[in-house]
Amino acid sequence: MEKVREIVREGRRVGKEDPRRVVHAFKVGLALALVSSFYYYQPLYDNFGVNAMWAVMTVVVVFEFSVGATLGKGLNRAVATLVAGGLGIGAHHLASLSGPTVEPILLAIFVFVLAALSTFVRFFPRVKARYDYGVLIFILTFALISVSGFREDEILDLAHKRLSTVIMGGVSCVLISIFVCPVWAGQDLHSLLASNFDTLSHFLQEFGDEYFEATEDGDIKEVEKRRRNLERYKSVLNSKSNEEALANFAKWEPCHGQFRFRHPWRQYLAVGALLRQCAYRIDALNSNINSDMQIPMDIKKKLEEPVRRMSLESGKSMKEVSISLKKMTISSSFDIHVVNSQSACETLSTLLKSGILNDVEPLQMISLMTTVSLLIDIVNLTEKISESVHELASAAKFKNKKKPSKSNSGSIGQAMPNKSHDDHDHVVTILGDVDTSNNVDQSQSHGEISVDSCHHVTIKINDDDSIHDKNEDGDIHVHTNRVSCEHTNASDLLDSGVKKN
Amino acid sequence: MEKVREIVREGRRVGKEDPRRVVHAFKVGLALALVSSFYYYQPLYDNFGVNAMWAVMTVVVVFEFSVGATLGKGLNRAVATLVAGGLGIGAHHLASLSGPTVEPILLAIFVFVLAALSTFVRFFPRVKARYDYGVLIFILTFALISVSGFREDEILDLAHKRLSTVIMGGVSCVLISIFVCPVWAGQDLHSLLASNFDTLSHFLQEFGDEYFEATEDGDIKEVEKRRRNLERYKSVLNSKSNEEALANFAKWEPCHGQFRFRHPWRQYLAVGALLRQCAYRIDALNSNINSDMQIPMDIKKKLEEPVRRMSLESGKSMKEVSISLKKMTISSSFDIHVVNSQSACETLSTLLKSGILNDVEPLQMISLMTTVSLLIDIVNLTEKISESVHELASAAKFKNKKKPSKSNSGSIGQAMPNKSHDDHDHVVTILGDVDTSNNVDQSQSHGEISVDSCHHVTIKINDDDSIHDKNEDGDIHVHTNRVSCEHTNASDLLDSGVKKN
Repeated sequence: MEKVREIVREGRRVGKEDPRRVVHAFKVGLALALVSSFYYYQPLYDNFGVNAMWAVMTVVVVFEFSVGATLGKGLNRAVATLVAGGLGIGAHHLASLSGPTVEPILLAIFVFVLAALSTFVRFFPRVKARYDYGVLIFILTFALISVSGFREDEILDLAHKRLSTVIMGGVSCVLISIFVCPVWAGQDLHSLLASNFDTLSHFLQEFGDEYFEATEDGDIKEVEKRRRNLERYKSVLNSKSNEEALANFAKWEPCHGQFRFRHPWRQYLAVGALLRQCAYRIDALNSNINSDMQIPMDIKKKLEEPVRRMSLESGKSMKEVSISLKKMTISSSFDIHVVNSQSACETLSTLLKSGILNDVEPLQMISLMTTVSLLIDIVNLTEKISESVHELASAAKFKNKKKPSKSNSGSIGQAMPNKSHDDHDHVVTILGDVDTSNNVDQSQSHGEISVDSCHHVTIKINDDDSIHDKNEDGDIHVHTNRVSCEHTNASDLLDSGVKKN
Repeated sequence: MEKVREIVREGRRVGKEDPRRVVHAFKVGLALALVSSFYYYQPLYDNFGVNAMWAVMTVVVVFEFSVGATLGKGLNRAVATLVAGGLGIGAHHLASLSGPTVEPILLAIFVFVLAALSTFVRFFPRVKARYDYGVLIFILTFALISVSGFREDEILDLAHKRLSTVIMGGVSCVLISIFVCPVWAGQDLHSLLASNFDTLSHFLQEFGDEYFEATEDGDIKEVEKRRRNLERYKSVLNSKSNEEALANFAKWEPCHGQFRFRHPWRQYLAVGALLRQCAYRIDALNSNINSDMQIPMDIKKKLEEPVRRMSLESGKSMKEVSISLKKMTISSSFDIHVVNSQSACETLSTLLKSGILNDVEPLQMISLMTTVSLLIDIVNLTEKISESVHELASAAKFKNKKKPSKSNSGSIGQAMPNKSHDDHDHVVTILGDVDTSNNVDQSQSHGEISVDSCHHVTIKINDDDSIHDKNEDGDIHVHTNRVSCEHTNASDLLDSGVKKN
C-alpha cells in the first residue's frame, strides 16, 4: 500500500515537472488504439493480413516525445525498410538461382555478411548519432525478408505489404505528433538556452549581496531558501547531453513557429558550451562565498565596488541575452553591460595596482584572489558568450529590433550603478560609441561583423593612452579566443595588465 | 571513389580504436545467421511457423556490445513478453465475454489505457534508467497479442510460440555474447577508471617541469607532441555519460573474473565524479601554464619547491591508485603521497606567511595565486579521492596486499623529493605513524574506518603546537566533506590557515 502511494506520488511529480508528458502518454495511447482498430477493420485486414501488425509495431517503437525524434525514427524506419526490402528480394532471387541445396547456405552467408557489416557501421560516430535506428531496422528487415522469402512465394507482395503497413504506422505517428499538442525539440532547445541564461544571470546579480552582506544569522528557513534559489544554476552544469539530444532531434524537424528547417542548431550548442563553462566558474565562485566568510569584511569591502559591478553587469548582460533570445530579436543591449563589466574589471586592476591590498595576509590573499580571478574569468566569458550570441542571431536571422531612441539610451545609462562616479562620464561617451558602431555594422551585414564590432567595443573602453597597448595585444586576444576556446582563463585579461606594467 | 576511400579510412580508424568492435560485428552476424538457419530447418518451422521470425527480431534488437547490455535487454524483453502475453490473453478473454459488437471497442480501450499508462511510466527516472526497453516491449506485445487474438482462435498457442521464440533468440544472443570473446561492461568500467587515474597522474607529474622549465623555443614538433601528451587528461572531462552507461550495464552482469554479481559499481561512479572534478581543476591549471609564462621566472621560482612537490606527490598518489586498481589490491601506498602533498601545502603556507611575495605586483599575484589555489584544490581532492578509493576497495573486497616490510617503507621514504631537507625528519616520523595506524585500522575492519584513518593522517602531519587547531576544525572539515562533496574548494584548506592567523 505504501509502495503504491509512493508510485502515485512519483507519478504526480513526474507529471508536474512537465505536463506535456501526460499529454504524450495520451497521444501514444490514441495512436495505438487507432492503428489497432485498422487491424480489426475487415477490408483492411483482408488486404494486409498479419502484416497489419507491422503498423502496430511501428507506432510503439517510433512514437517519441518530440516531433523531431518521431520524424527521425519514422524516416529512418521507412527508408531502411525500403532499402532492405529491395536488397532482401535481390538476395532471395540470387540464391534461388543456385538450386535448393546451395540456397539456404547462400542466404545464411548473405545474412551474415550484411549483418556484420551493418553492425560495424553502427560504430561510426556520424552514423550512430543520426542513423543508428535505421541501420538496426535495415538488418532486421533484410534478415526477415530474405529468410521468410524462402517459405512464401509471393515475396514481392510481402515486401510491398510490409512497407505499406510500416508507412501507415509511421504516418499516423507523425501526424498525431505534429497536430495534437506538438512538442518541438527545437523550441525546447531554444527555451532551454534562454532559461539557462536566466538562471546564471540570477546568480550573478545576487552574488554581490551574498558576498558582501549576507550573514548566516537570521531565519534559517529564509537563508536556506535564498541559498536554494541561488543554486539553481547547478542545472546548467549538466545540460550538455540534454542539449545535444535536442539539437539532434531538432535537425529532423520541419519549419515551425519562428524556426526554419535549417535553423543553426549547431550554434546553440556552441553558445551552450560557453554558458556551461561560465556555470563551472560560478560553481567555484559559489563554494568560495562560504569560505571567504573567514576574511574580515573590511578587507573584502576594499574591493566591493568593482567586484559588485563586475558580477552585476555580467548578470545583466545575460538577462538581456535571455530576453533577446525569448523575443528572437537582434539586440545589442547586452553589449553595453559587457562593456560595463569590463570597465569594472579595469577599475579593479587600477585598484589592485594602487597597492590597496598590500597589508593583507598572504593566505587571505589567495582566497580573495581566487574570487577575483573567477570573476574576471566570468567577465571574459560573458564577452565570448555575447559574441557567440551575435553569431547565433545573425545565423538564425533573428528580427532586427527597432533602433533605440534617445530616451532608450538614457535608460541604459541608468543601468550603471550609481556608485561609480569616477568613470561615469567616461562610460557615457562609450555608450555613444557603441550605439553608432553597432548600428553601422549591422546595417552593413549580418555576418561575421558583429563579432568584430564586439571586439571594437572592448577596445574602446580604454583611456586614450592605453588604446595602443590594447590594440597591440588585440591580436593576441583574438588568437587565444581561437585556440583555447575551451579554456577561457582568468589570466587572459591579466596578461595585458601585467604587460602594461 | 573519394567518398568510398574516406569511408574505408573511417572504418579502419573505428576498428583500430577498439578492435573488439570488429569481433562484435562478426558475433552479431554469426548469431543472426544461426537463428535464421533455425527458421529454415523444417521440423522447427513446422512447429513455430511465422513466429520463428520473432527469434530473428530478438537477436537483431537485443544483441548489444557488452554482456551487461545484452543481458539487460534480453531479460527485459523476456519478462515483458511474458507479462504482456498474460495480460493480453486476459484482456482478450474479458473482451470476448461481452459479445461481438462491444468486443473491438473494449479491446481498443484496453490498448489505449495500457499504452498511455506504460508510456507515462517510462518517464519515471528509475524506470527509464533500467527498464525502458522492457516497458516498450510490454506495450508492443500486449497490443499485438490482444489484437491479433481477435483473428486467431488459438491465442494461447500464439502467446506460447512467441514467448518461446523470443527466449530462443535471447538465449542465443546471451550465450554468444558471454562465450565468444565476451566484452564485460564491468571490466571496461574498471579499466576506464584506472586509466583515468593514469592520465591525470601523468599531467600532475609533468606539471612542474612544464611550469618552471618549459620554453616555447626548440623543435616545434617536439613542443606540440609534449603538449598533446600533456592534454590527454581532456578525455577525463567528458567521461561521465560513458561511466554511467557502463555502470548501468555492469549491474546486469553475472560474476566474471574478479568481479562479483553485486560489485559496488555505484562507488566507481563516486570515485569517477571526484576524479572528474580534479580534471576540471587540471584543465584550468593547464590554461594557466600558458598565461603564467608572462610572470618573471624569478618570482615563480620562489614557490618552486612546494609547488613542484604538491603536483608531483598528488600525481604519484594517483599513479599508485591506478596500480592498486589494476591489481585489485588494498594498498595504502597512495596515502603516503597524499600526506607528502599535504605537507608540501603546509610548506607553501609557511612560505607565503613569511612574506616572500610581498614585493610582487598585485596583478601577477592574482595569476600566481590562481595557480596556487588550483593546486591546493587538487591536493584536497586527491585526499578525498584516496578516501573514496579506500571505500571502494573495502566495498569491493579487494585483496589485501602483503604488509610492507622494513625495506619497503625505506623505498617509500625515497619517494620524497630530495630537496625538502627542512621537513624530511618530520616526514619520516609521519610515515611510521601512518604505517601503524593504517595496519591497526585495517586489521580491525574493512569498513568506514579507512576514511577515518585517512583523516587521522591529515591531522598528524602538523607540528605539535598546531594539532589542537586542526582538531578543532577537524569537524568542520568533515562537515564540508559531507555537505559540499560536489564543490571541493581551494579555500577548504585555506580556512584553517586563515584561522590559525
